[in-house]
Amino acid sequence: MSATWELAPALQIRQWLNTPEPISLEGLRGRVVVLHAFQMLCPGCVSQGIPQAKRIQAAFPAEDLIVIGLHTVFEHHAVMNAEALHVFAHEYGLSFPMGIDQPAERGSVPLTMQAYALRGTPSLIVLDREGRIRLNHFGHLDDLRLGALLGRLVGEQPAPD
Amino acid sequence: MSATWELAPALQIRQWLNTPEPISLEGLRGRVVVLHAFQMLCPGCVSQGIPQAKRIQAAFPAEDLIVIGLHTVFEHHAVMNAEALHVFAHEYGLSFPMGIDQPAERGSVPLTMQAYALRGTPSLIVLDREGRIRLNHFGHLDDLRLGALLGRLVGEQPAPD
Amino acid sequence: MSATWELAPALQIRQWLNTPEPISLEGLRGRVVVLHAFQMLCPGCVSQGIPQAKRIQAAFPAEDLIVIGLHTVFEHHAVMNAEALHVFAHEYGLSFPMGIDQPAERGSVPLTMQAYALRGTPSLIVLDREGRIRLNHFGHLDDLRLGALLGRLVGEQPAPD
Amino acid sequence: MSATWELAPALQIRQWLNTPEPISLEGLRGRVVVLHAFQMLCPGCVSQGIPQAKRIQAAFPAEDLIVIGLHTVFEHHAVMNAEALHVFAHEYGLSFPMGIDQPAERGSVPLTMQAYALRGTPSLIVLDREGRIRLNHFGHLDDLRLGALLGRLVGEQPAPD
Repeated sequence: MSATWELAPALQIRQWLNTPEPISLEGLRGRVVVLHAFQMLCPGCVSQGIPQAKRIQAAFPAEDLIVIGLHTVFEHHAVMNAEALHVFAHEYGLSFPMGIDQPAERGSVPLTMQAYALRGTPSLIVLDREGRIRLNHFGHLDDLRLGALLGRLVGEQPAPD
Repeated sequence: MSATWELAPALQIRQWLNTPEPISLEGLRGRVVVLHAFQMLCPGCVSQGIPQAKRIQAAFPAEDLIVIGLHTVFEHHAVMNAEALHVFAHEYGLSFPMGIDQPAERGSVPLTMQAYALRGTPSLIVLDREGRIRLNHFGHLDDLRLGALLGRLVGEQPAPD
Repeated sequence: MSATWELAPALQIRQWLNTPEPISLEGLRGRVVVLHAFQMLCPGCVSQGIPQAKRIQAAFPAEDLIVIGLHTVFEHHAVMNAEALHVFAHEYGLSFPMGIDQPAERGSVPLTMQAYALRGTPSLIVLDREGRIRLNHFGHLDDLRLGALLGRLVGEQPAPD
Repeated sequence: MSATWELAPALQIRQWLNTPEPISLEGLRGRVVVLHAFQMLCPGCVSQGIPQAKRIQAAFPAEDLIVIGLHTVFEHHAVMNAEALHVFAHEYGLSFPMGIDQPAERGSVPLTMQAYALRGTPSLIVLDREGRIRLNHFGHLDDLRLGALLGRLVGEQPAPD
């Protein structure tokens, strides 16, 4: 399989939720990774993205695929803070790990969001078992097409070293 | 028509949004009033109650019926504050008047929520043209049954003085 | 109340289902009547109209309102026959009375469909307690607006003779 | 890959729709095959199965995957006949090939339905690129899980001879 896919840049996270210790993408090699970038007060994230992230988490075995929330706040920073996100995660029953994207020193767009060149929220990034970006999608993607991509990636055998 | 329905207690509001001046129920006599009690981080409010409130606002002429949001925060007060509610209203495109329920001096349940004996959010309170409580419902009510009640109340002629 | 609404023309029915004897609109005076005109192989009827008709039947007391299905077949007559309609009603669990619209001697549009000048299926016709046409709507009408109309009509007191 | 999956039995079809000539599973080797078994008057088929079959057809390239409808009539044979199915396919805009399952000489269950031991409708049968049964599911399967299976199968490389 030719290596035409870009290796995913590192996550730059200010604070983690729902995980005993920080997560690095390198530590997830061998598993498919779904990064769900959202803002807790973004209507499309709440109505479509978050429920889909929960369905993905439920549909795939943890040893094959992991869902990670990425709170990429680029507006209204004062009210979408860490304390508010904790309440949101509690109220919506989210149990997958979530990272709060590291704010930039200048400008409103946080660092991971910049590194992945995300256009807004919700965005869906999918990494294959080798940590390469296989999807970087702004907006909603229907379950059938997304499921097809994830199933294909789960089925891929990692290249021998 | 017999007066077996209780007159609605006054709203006790700390701050109003989407209205040039404070609203009193007495000033709304002659119109049907729908009070939609919610919390901005309550999933059932966001997925069902808020969209229904918007549909009600769109379906009835303003001279017949008014929708009023009531932000009855009884938990997580620190993050569901006035600033956060402004962002929420903006992001969700809410244009109906909203009042922030007045916090109690003691306890977490705000004053209007107490006065109406609400059990939680979302709750729906409907007042007839004479300001009497005709529905006080905890949870979701389907559009057909709610529409039937509202249509009936809109059709009622106020009793002559 | 001024009599600006047209009295509903008589139903012309070839065969009834779900009723021990034929139904006449005159016999229903005093109740609101919802006529749901459909074809059993019309996708919009099956996905939206039929479920809504069942919801209406469930939401209103029988002494206030009756739902009547009207099988107005204007195309593919050979396969949407009485035997097929019986199977359809059984499979979809329809328990409200249904009348098969009387075919015309010439042309494909049956007689009741002609009398009400229906444009297609699904169509919704609503009669008030005095048998007057208060709605004649082609296509889907959302539950909130339809509920509002039905609630208003149920609340109307029949004019004294 | 071990050969623990059963080779799909041949389709036994009385009449085909939407295909210039009869289809055999052997002729489809190299492609994933989705057999959607339904009855045109089965509510769950119409509300869930048929729309899903259309979504599958739209989501995958024809060279990778083919959707085939299988009209497995086991009740009410008189009204779910070939002529009615043609009308149904036309009204619902179905363009994938459909086969009418061959009636049995005795009993109401048609031959392909027997050969696959289907329990009812809707049923979903998925064959891999080598014609082996990878799923035989009675009832609805959500888009995400079904998509995952189809994506995995599309990604499989046929074993070398």
